[in-house]
Amino acid sequence: MANPVLIEVTRGDRVESIHRGAFAIVDADGATVASLGDIETPVYPRSSLKPVQALPLVESGAADAFGIGGEELALACASHSGEPMHTERVTAWLKRIACTEHDLACGAHPSRYEPVADAMIKRSEKPTRIFNNCSGKHTGFLSVARHWDVATAGYEKHDHPVQRAVAEALGELSGLGPDMPWGIDGCTAPNFALPLKAFALALAKMAAPEKLPSVRAAAVKRLTQAMMDHPELVSGTGRTCAILMRAAKGKAAVKTGAEGFFAGIVPGRGYGVAIKIDDGAGRASDTAMAVLMAKLGLLDADGEAGRLVRAPVVNTVGTIVGERRPAEALARVNL
Amino acid sequence: MANPVLIEVTRGDRVESIHRGAFAIVDADGATVASLGDIETPVYPRSSLKPVQALPLVESGAADAFGIGGEELALACASHSGEPMHTERVTAWLKRIACTEHDLACGAHPSRYEPVADAMIKRSEKPTRIFNNCSGKHTGFLSVARHWDVATAGYEKHDHPVQRAVAEALGELSGLGPDMPWGIDGCTAPNFALPLKAFALALAKMAAPEKLPSVRAAAVKRLTQAMMDHPELVSGTGRTCAILMRAAKGKAAVKTGAEGFFAGIVPGRGYGVAIKIDDGAGRASDTAMAVLMAKLGLLDADGEAGRLVRAPVVNTVGTIVGERRPAEALARVNL
Repeated sequence: MANPVLIEVTRGDRVESIHRGAFAIVDADGATVASLGDIETPVYPRSSLKPVQALPLVESGAADAFGIGGEELALACASHSGEPMHTERVTAWLKRIACTEHDLACGAHPSRYEPVADAMIKRSEKPTRIFNNCSGKHTGFLSVARHWDVATAGYEKHDHPVQRAVAEALGELSGLGPDMPWGIDGCTAPNFALPLKAFALALAKMAAPEKLPSVRAAAVKRLTQAMMDHPELVSGTGRTCAILMRAAKGKAAVKTGAEGFFAGIVPGRGYGVAIKIDDGAGRASDTAMAVLMAKLGLLDADGEAGRLVRAPVVNTVGTIVGERRPAEALARVNL
Repeated sequence: MANPVLIEVTRGDRVESIHRGAFAIVDADGATVASLGDIETPVYPRSSLKPVQALPLVESGAADAFGIGGEELALACASHSGEPMHTERVTAWLKRIACTEHDLACGAHPSRYEPVADAMIKRSEKPTRIFNNCSGKHTGFLSVARHWDVATAGYEKHDHPVQRAVAEALGELSGLGPDMPWGIDGCTAPNFALPLKAFALALAKMAAPEKLPSVRAAAVKRLTQAMMDHPELVSGTGRTCAILMRAAKGKAAVKTGAEGFFAGIVPGRGYGVAIKIDDGAGRASDTAMAVLMAKLGLLDADGEAGRLVRAPVVNTVGTIVGERRPAEALARVNL
């Protein structure tokens, strides 16, 4: 059966495009607080997995051994825009673990922050791998490898100890065990596929650290706090994660993923939120997360975050010609 | 009922994202040759409407009066990339009708061809409205206004004589009459909503000019031939329309539209093809058009066009991590 329409995009007085998808809000005991659509078929969280992929960095002791603080932990969970605040910190962190950009397995791509990208074009400067939006995550992986004194080369392989530690952590939090199906992410790291409901449970467990063993509890608290303390380091200037976390004022840590994924950790409520848009559209997962956060009372409907809930569609001369908004099924959800 | 899945995008051995949609292939008598999904609900063709929007330019006699040849007619049907081959011709054409870029109602945006966009960033040069991908269409509108000696200001308004002529032409070809619902396009011009089946019929009538009154027959022949003669002027270097029209070697004129639309005129068969992806994804309409053209025997499965039928998904280091391909419902279509 088709997933329900979560988001619609209008032009004039008609709906022009629709986005189907599913979401699950789950508590730390595994109870589904709310959901729409198929939450049982495994899907890839993509970069929404980063807060879990960063767990070994803290749990292994690597973060403490290398003096890695909240800013770096936020970067380990980030899909960053390659602004100086990101690249300078990743560069310094790599140096601290005796690595360079050449140790990063992720490929180079231009900064996603236009002023930086344009300035680099003007200087005929090619982006390094440090500009990859995942360079913080990869530097976290390298830190664990260094701390364990295992090979750094191949740290992105599915059977490397660092990736096995990620699989163990995700398998424990989701209840699925470490042998989940997987594919290769845009940055070369393994990405694990799991049901929305199971991933939302993993996020809920990160939202309720008091129920976790002490080492894990300490790790998820540090990571979640780091994300909420440094919203722009997790994303970038003007990006959706930054807007939503600023608006939530410490009540939620949220993280986008490619192909229409969005994850949320809501510590005050002990909830995990996982959204997947069927067609992979980020514009739809952005609005869906804003809508669910508004319904959860996590953000003010005014300001930038509110404009994600009902987003104007603007043409090349600035005329509002339509809007992106929750469709009926999502609008009707009671939380 | 939900439209069928037309395109799927895989990662590893799993489908990561899906694109639902509908298409209609119709002949000039209105018979549906093949279809999937809802072809009765009105949808916006967006820039796929341009070959119809260019009809008044030829039918009014404006094209002949201003000595407008095949290259300019291709540009009138274009969503161009703002390469010199496009901007220089539009600039010269505007001059010929005693207009300037300030008469264009469309907004400015950067060239979509990276080498040009990057070179302009290096020179700190802002794009003019001539770089708008629709500037050829708008120059066509202005040419008609000049030829009719009516106001050029406001030529983009729904009730301006030029837009009424577009609505009349579309209303006649589709059989729906001129009073279709409409919205404002990205470039400020009206865009009319009509069922996929009706739009495919309009395209089929353009594919079978021998059944049309002589003035219209001559106009559609000139426009279709202009598109097929100048694939890069209709789109740009490396763009999907150019790849597909080059591969079709004069057997089809095709035109993308925003929000997952794609239109095809197949003169040898007298067919019109109209595709709308529900969620607006261009990656899916690109592949769907390539698949249908391959099934119609219009292109070779080798080369660039074939790589649109089954397109590799490549990550930041160049590894193939999945593919974009026709889903079962589309793969099973017999033509």
